[in-house]
Amino acid sequence: MKNKIYHKGNTRLIVLIIIVFGSLACAQQKTLIDKNDSQAGQYTLPYEAPSVDSIKAVMKRIWDYFYSGTPLRIINKTTREEITDFSKPNKDADLDNGERGLFSIWSYPQGVTYDGMLKLGEVTGDSKYTQYPFKSMKYYFDHLSYFQKIDSVYGAMNNSYKGLIRTSNLDDCGSMGAALIRMYKVDKDPRFRAAIDHIADYVSNKQFRLADGTIARQRPQAQSIWADDAYMSIPFLAEMGSLTGDAKYFDDAVKQVLQMSKYLFRWDKGLYDHGVNIHNANDPNIYWGRANGWLIISIVDLLDVLPENYKGRDEILKILRAHVKGLTEVQNSEGLWNNLLDKTDSYGETSCTGLFVYGIAHAINQGWVDYTFGPVAQAGWNALAAKILPNGQVNGTCIATTFASENIYYYHRPVSVYASHGYGPVLLAGAEMIKLIQNEKIVIRAANGTFHYRLRSDIEK
Amino acid sequence: MKNKIYHKGNTRLIVLIIIVFGSLACAQQKTLIDKNDSQAGQYTLPYEAPSVDSIKAVMKRIWDYFYSGTPLRIINKTTREEITDFSKPNKDADLDNGERGLFSIWSYPQGVTYDGMLKLGEVTGDSKYTQYPFKSMKYYFDHLSYFQKIDSVYGAMNNSYKGLIRTSNLDDCGSMGAALIRMYKVDKDPRFRAAIDHIADYVSNKQFRLADGTIARQRPQAQSIWADDAYMSIPFLAEMGSLTGDAKYFDDAVKQVLQMSKYLFRWDKGLYDHGVNIHNANDPNIYWGRANGWLIISIVDLLDVLPENYKGRDEILKILRAHVKGLTEVQNSEGLWNNLLDKTDSYGETSCTGLFVYGIAHAINQGWVDYTFGPVAQAGWNALAAKILPNGQVNGTCIATTFASENIYYYHRPVSVYASHGYGPVLLAGAEMIKLIQNEKIVIRAANGTFHYRLRSDIEK
Amino acid sequence: MKNKIYHKGNTRLIVLIIIVFGSLACAQQKTLIDKNDSQAGQYTLPYEAPSVDSIKAVMKRIWDYFYSGTPLRIINKTTREEITDFSKPNKDADLDNGERGLFSIWSYPQGVTYDGMLKLGEVTGDSKYTQYPFKSMKYYFDHLSYFQKIDSVYGAMNNSYKGLIRTSNLDDCGSMGAALIRMYKVDKDPRFRAAIDHIADYVSNKQFRLADGTIARQRPQAQSIWADDAYMSIPFLAEMGSLTGDAKYFDDAVKQVLQMSKYLFRWDKGLYDHGVNIHNANDPNIYWGRANGWLIISIVDLLDVLPENYKGRDEILKILRAHVKGLTEVQNSEGLWNNLLDKTDSYGETSCTGLFVYGIAHAINQGWVDYTFGPVAQAGWNALAAKILPNGQVNGTCIATTFASENIYYYHRPVSVYASHGYGPVLLAGAEMIKLIQNEKIVIRAANGTFHYRLRSDIEK
Repeated sequence: MKNKIYHKGNTRLIVLIIIVFGSLACAQQKTLIDKNDSQAGQYTLPYEAPSVDSIKAVMKRIWDYFYSGTPLRIINKTTREEITDFSKPNKDADLDNGERGLFSIWSYPQGVTYDGMLKLGEVTGDSKYTQYPFKSMKYYFDHLSYFQKIDSVYGAMNNSYKGLIRTSNLDDCGSMGAALIRMYKVDKDPRFRAAIDHIADYVSNKQFRLADGTIARQRPQAQSIWADDAYMSIPFLAEMGSLTGDAKYFDDAVKQVLQMSKYLFRWDKGLYDHGVNIHNANDPNIYWGRANGWLIISIVDLLDVLPENYKGRDEILKILRAHVKGLTEVQNSEGLWNNLLDKTDSYGETSCTGLFVYGIAHAINQGWVDYTFGPVAQAGWNALAAKILPNGQVNGTCIATTFASENIYYYHRPVSVYASHGYGPVLLAGAEMIKLIQNEKIVIRAANGTFHYRLRSDIEK
Repeated sequence: MKNKIYHKGNTRLIVLIIIVFGSLACAQQKTLIDKNDSQAGQYTLPYEAPSVDSIKAVMKRIWDYFYSGTPLRIINKTTREEITDFSKPNKDADLDNGERGLFSIWSYPQGVTYDGMLKLGEVTGDSKYTQYPFKSMKYYFDHLSYFQKIDSVYGAMNNSYKGLIRTSNLDDCGSMGAALIRMYKVDKDPRFRAAIDHIADYVSNKQFRLADGTIARQRPQAQSIWADDAYMSIPFLAEMGSLTGDAKYFDDAVKQVLQMSKYLFRWDKGLYDHGVNIHNANDPNIYWGRANGWLIISIVDLLDVLPENYKGRDEILKILRAHVKGLTEVQNSEGLWNNLLDKTDSYGETSCTGLFVYGIAHAINQGWVDYTFGPVAQAGWNALAAKILPNGQVNGTCIATTFASENIYYYHRPVSVYASHGYGPVLLAGAEMIKLIQNEKIVIRAANGTFHYRLRSDIEK
Repeated sequence: MKNKIYHKGNTRLIVLIIIVFGSLACAQQKTLIDKNDSQAGQYTLPYEAPSVDSIKAVMKRIWDYFYSGTPLRIINKTTREEITDFSKPNKDADLDNGERGLFSIWSYPQGVTYDGMLKLGEVTGDSKYTQYPFKSMKYYFDHLSYFQKIDSVYGAMNNSYKGLIRTSNLDDCGSMGAALIRMYKVDKDPRFRAAIDHIADYVSNKQFRLADGTIARQRPQAQSIWADDAYMSIPFLAEMGSLTGDAKYFDDAVKQVLQMSKYLFRWDKGLYDHGVNIHNANDPNIYWGRANGWLIISIVDLLDVLPENYKGRDEILKILRAHVKGLTEVQNSEGLWNNLLDKTDSYGETSCTGLFVYGIAHAINQGWVDYTFGPVAQAGWNALAAKILPNGQVNGTCIATTFASENIYYYHRPVSVYASHGYGPVLLAGAEMIKLIQNEKIVIRAANGTFHYRLRSDIEK
């Protein structure tokens, strides 16, 4: 009898109705926030699904700032007067690197910026983004022989060409090298290729490594592994494998990911330690934001070109997924990630957030990590967008940072709009967010005051 | 010789003297707080052993607010005019659910409130608390046939009877169902029984489950386990087992606790993840306060009626103890628990605190967890009492919250005095704190500026 | 061909140049802090390598305060009048313990202060530090017979001699006992020796212990292990082993470290729980700062005198190293450690910071932990120095604290310049920092805005 008094309807329909009403109810509830308790309920930044147009507008602002700001001229760095006569070598000649060196053409942060511009050009089909790296690199190589002449006459000079002419560390190599290969795939400029091969020789044959082949440095201690060196080597090795088809580069790239992760990845937290000094068996963990950013971008850059079924690929995917889980768990209340990822009292930092948004969104788009991480990237993007000043400057980026021994240094590391490390990551993040929003396989649903990323195929079932 | 110069006294006596003096010294020290350092030394809320009378006064205030506020009338929800003529079905008829729906008679938060009122009536012997749920339920069932008529004429309407007439999700079932059984044990109203059996059919036979029998939802993703569903099913199944003696209900209740815990309980933290999406093997952990509250109350509700030595009981006790340990470790500086339990920069939230105070105090009173957790419940109660406004409103409760994908949503989820989720937990907490204070087995000792809960039998040894 | 266009220089030289320029570039960057983001970039305290002179100046200030403040007189504690006639016992006689009891001659915090003064005297060669403990102890024993007379006439009185005459707990024993042995090694005063032997009898034969020999208390619960008791026993047992050559003392000291660590050390965090109540299998972890301080100093005190290759020494070193790692990971943004070590919203506390700086610096100087932890001690010292008021008072020390059951107590435990627990740790820290700075094996390098401690032998390679 009991069942008779209750109607057996179409529950599917009712579920849909509830979802719709739930959303309305939720929207309504937002106006009912209890003013008695000021701790909760106020989003400090927009909490929304960004539009492609809004992202493009942010990208354009950054581009304007960059494009108009990059001097592309040679100066006497003492007098700051332009040099136009390249017939005789000038000891003090250098590229004009722009205000506070922000637009330095040959530097590892700039390699990220070039990558961001190239990807943005690809996603938007807007050639102005693609032009920027080519214009810069062409200008650079147009004047290489002049600076080689200076070097041959005066010896090593501390200018923007030293990193290429007298290559002595990875910071001068991998990031720019990877960017160069990406450009060389489009434009077979032989000067690009010569530089690429030179860098390949340095990375594969000259760079200091531990006995087990892990790339390392001799500072700050005798044998120090830096997470940063993932980016200074892996994307280049990966692109080199792609360019040459020579397995040794892929093998080395895979090896570096696995070795770096063996030394630095903490599975219980899903985060990378900034570095280890090999002689200290109890090296402390310091989860610096950008160090983790370098790892995630290195890994997705490698996966982009590493053949399916390549030995080690599955292990790398496993690490990537654990990393994205760990990052999700420490995203801060604004959507940024903190300079010290696991410290809620550290400051939200732009460059690592950009790298994470890119890494997560790209891994979703490629199907490497679950699409339910979409709202993590989205919240990260919203927070990033708020860091872009009206004039296109990227705010809140931690300046160049060494591998230090205690928290205090990282807690207080200054931020600056002149820290070039923030620009590339934001461009990459924006480019990939556009792809995520346009991803045909995914439906973004707003409900109950939040957002869910669902597979279209699930919903249509 | 050496021992001769020192007196060998009665150390027992001296120990007692020291304790007494220690307490005095401590009280004195409080006035010596160093004003040079403002970070420490100021309790933001009372730090004390509450009296039964003080708890009763808080309970009374909430009851006054509830009793006088619950409309118990039928209205046209468009015009908000009262309907008194039930001879002809009115499409727009609904219960008047009070200001902003706070006093909705049939809703899962209200099921907790009824439970709180019933337990409070039992502990205090004051029938005014017991009357409230009966008065409400009688009123509800008095008008059920009228709304069934509306349903049969107009089809499914979005009113307060839809959850019972067109049952389609657990939110409409378990919590109210458990409350109904508790009332039916006292008053054999056949209408209660019919609804109970209807709900039992839904929970046992209609509800979506994973292949392994775990109760789950098809939102936000295709297969999503929500910690919330513990409360929407387990207490009802437990009470159903108790009512019918049919082992299948106990078996299912035990199974749900163990399965939910398998999927959601993180032993390393002693906390429950809010939910998992089954297809994501790297589903991130989000330790939402109320989700954990739902688990602890579900578990103690089950243990209340599950026979001793029932299969699985020991495992459940083991989980409960690990949970109480984990909760103790994340209690915030005020005695509240944060909306994101493991984030010190999240806000202190009322409903989860109420559920934890109830769960911990009840588990102590029943001997399921150690009595040394008494001060945890006590500090939680002090903080809760400060959340009750003079007019009896419960402040600081997180509004209805979905299972989201990132931290930002939870960090900013609004609180409201109109979030009905806070009322039942505070009533339950108050009722159980009275029992804890009156627990003959336990002695509460104030010493050295804090409180220790000791076994009377230990002290008398 | 490619290699021909790039110069193959002396990379060693270039690396050195880069380091130097890197440092300069870094110093320059500090002036470029982005004012748009106020969260980062401002050190709240000096971030520097302290000079020996600056440390000595701080030490001198504390000594001035202590030396001039210690009354060294007997008073009638009711009238506060000085007693000079010791021919007849006065019931109310007591040592004048100075303002708010800060200069109590016989108390466990004072034992740490004596230790600090002795070590500071040794490091600086300045006898004024060494004199303080001797002067105090001589004065104390000069009047022991008078107070023994009072005790024999009036029974146990609550005065500064009760701890020695009617020894009934470890707080009155181990710390003072260890200090006495250190003094007795220099000055064979037979009164010191009698007290030492009396204390040894109490610790070895009278003190309550668990069945497995672990030192414990019968409060707050029937069987409670307190981390504090490590310091109240281990340094004394260690010094007793050193004094007598009797292995039983070393064995007991080693046993206490290992047993305490078994019960209280959490390897996953590298931190000690404040205490456990044996009957509660789910005793929660509360990582109180000073409790961890007691452990690290107890361990290094033991290692100082325990013979090389002694059974258990390796295991103790392993614990020490894990502890230093754990402490490094939770050092706060100012260089202090928080009263609740793992809670970023707890307050920075002086006494634990002093004990950690001493323990870490000493362990580096002895070669027990890696020298790369030097900047951790250095940052801790900078923060401590800022806690010393112009008049030599040590600020920010948590007052006497019991083993409590919840976080709230610890979050709000008051700090006071009259908490004597802070003085010894700061003296010890300062003494050991002088040794660290003067450590010939180590070179402190400032680079990239931070400090690295390197082995001289590494650099000269």
